[in-house]
Amino acid sequence: MPLPRIVITPGEPAGIGPDICLQICLKPWPCELIFVADPNLLARRATELNLSIDIQQADLRQASSAHKPGTMNVFPIKLAKQEISGLLDVSNAAYIVETLKAAAQLCLDKQCQALVTGPVQKSVINDAHITFSGHTEFLADYCGSYPVMMLATKTLRVALATTHLPLSNVSAAITPTLLEKTITILNHDLQRQFAIANPRIAVCGLNPHAGENGHLGNEEIDTIIPSLEKLRLNNICLTGPLPADTAFTQPVLEKHDVVLAMYHDQGLPTLKFSGFGDAVNITLGLPIIRTSVDHGTALDLAATGKASASSLASALDTAIQLAQRSTLEQTT
Amino acid sequence: MPLPRIVITPGEPAGIGPDICLQICLKPWPCELIFVADPNLLARRATELNLSIDIQQADLRQASSAHKPGTMNVFPIKLAKQEISGLLDVSNAAYIVETLKAAAQLCLDKQCQALVTGPVQKSVINDAHITFSGHTEFLADYCGSYPVMMLATKTLRVALATTHLPLSNVSAAITPTLLEKTITILNHDLQRQFAIANPRIAVCGLNPHAGENGHLGNEEIDTIIPSLEKLRLNNICLTGPLPADTAFTQPVLEKHDVVLAMYHDQGLPTLKFSGFGDAVNITLGLPIIRTSVDHGTALDLAATGKASASSLASALDTAIQLAQRSTLEQTT
Repeated sequence: MPLPRIVITPGEPAGIGPDICLQICLKPWPCELIFVADPNLLARRATELNLSIDIQQADLRQASSAHKPGTMNVFPIKLAKQEISGLLDVSNAAYIVETLKAAAQLCLDKQCQALVTGPVQKSVINDAHITFSGHTEFLADYCGSYPVMMLATKTLRVALATTHLPLSNVSAAITPTLLEKTITILNHDLQRQFAIANPRIAVCGLNPHAGENGHLGNEEIDTIIPSLEKLRLNNICLTGPLPADTAFTQPVLEKHDVVLAMYHDQGLPTLKFSGFGDAVNITLGLPIIRTSVDHGTALDLAATGKASASSLASALDTAIQLAQRSTLEQTT
Repeated sequence: MPLPRIVITPGEPAGIGPDICLQICLKPWPCELIFVADPNLLARRATELNLSIDIQQADLRQASSAHKPGTMNVFPIKLAKQEISGLLDVSNAAYIVETLKAAAQLCLDKQCQALVTGPVQKSVINDAHITFSGHTEFLADYCGSYPVMMLATKTLRVALATTHLPLSNVSAAITPTLLEKTITILNHDLQRQFAIANPRIAVCGLNPHAGENGHLGNEEIDTIIPSLEKLRLNNICLTGPLPADTAFTQPVLEKHDVVLAMYHDQGLPTLKFSGFGDAVNITLGLPIIRTSVDHGTALDLAATGKASASSLASALDTAIQLAQRSTLEQTT
């Protein structure tokens, strides 16, 4: 079985993305690593961090081989302007997007088996007048598919029905179509990517106490309950809609494989609390495997040597596992 | 120093409230316990649970004395209709409200030093055409004050800016007036009730990523940031607005005494996850001390002997601590 080749985007050049990518290159990995970035940026950051890394241009024509500690294979994309660590610059927004497109394309072309993304700062991309509401949405758009964002720690998996929306837009976004698409993908990809035969999905209500029989909102009665009933006819194992503050208690969690939250801040605070910095963001529904760090750009820590690569290492670990399973499916 | 006298409402008669009240009577407590309920309901439930409890009418004229295991002092209020365990009955909705009023009045009259409430089912009270959106709001209305709901476990405190509102009404409810009232009470009562000299309050934004500089909603820029700046002039120690999924991570939590969430499901899922069934609900801003269980009526467990009294025991422990501190303030 060939070793997977994993492509990594360091993300925002002024943030800690380059730092943590350099850090993980110091260790051995049971896969080949390809970084899509400006090699001069990586060389400068390595010097700033006093890390000795041999930066080479990636050669995708060779068979993949296990990562050698102290080396870094780069698929080069040039920065528009030399970065200053810690300082956002709209001039480099298009560069960030280009690294993502190139990395996604390597996966679509089967030259790489999974994509791991470092942190970006959405605001600076938007300030450059590029529409970008998050990696998840961007990659889905690029791949022409519908994404489901799921985060996982060692103890908990949380998927989201909506992602980066202002809170006041969430209620209108929860439609039967959205719930059917999201839950169908979640069920399918937990089977396909995670080898869970019959995923048990705990679904949160939208309102506090899941609307308490219509006394605290009607979306459960009007939309969520009928949608779940319809999906149960497809043999999808669904519990709910549950009050969110019940869904994340031990008696519920131990009987389910994932909690589906209706929106970002209903699900992710608990997930991050449970993860102690080691949460992995996994995009389901794409034709490629994609995982990501769960943290931001931490501009103040860039080039200081204080950034932790633990979330990137977890994202890479997960990507390797998913890619190995996928390779297995292809070769058997 | 006299022992505190704590008044407890078992809540919904068909739920586990009576069960857990009977259970805690089996243990010693360093306070006097008074239960506001129908003594016949308690006697029937004790028989069903095969518990030997001596149910007596409370005598508030005597000096308070430590609770004697196996006894239960009851301030009697009659049920409208004999309860059936596990079955909600609108006929008894007014009874539930009466027990709350009587218990709150005992505290306002200084006959009791704290109120601990068992679980109620809001929907059955509403079905009886009684306006009731929660204990917290009801007690504030009864006492003529503005409430702030805070929940606490051994490791985490979470206060809420809004409580039992449909999600789509939350944005409009977050006003400068609300934030100023909520944060001022939170700061004051953490000083007064919890003896924290200068409470450090982490404030969540309303939108995902705290609005990400207006890219994911404007409430932070328009309302929350200006309100926090104004409150900081009063020497209130505030951090934020923070993304909710950052606010509940260890580096933030270890530097703060409480997290203020903007709404119910932004804060409580993490709190409940952290508490393993031992979360205590504390109402700040009232002229009385009030704590509560963090769970519902669990109708299916009523009269089965399977209900856990651990949350009620935690709520009672907290009430005793707060009442002792309050007694101390009055007598020194």
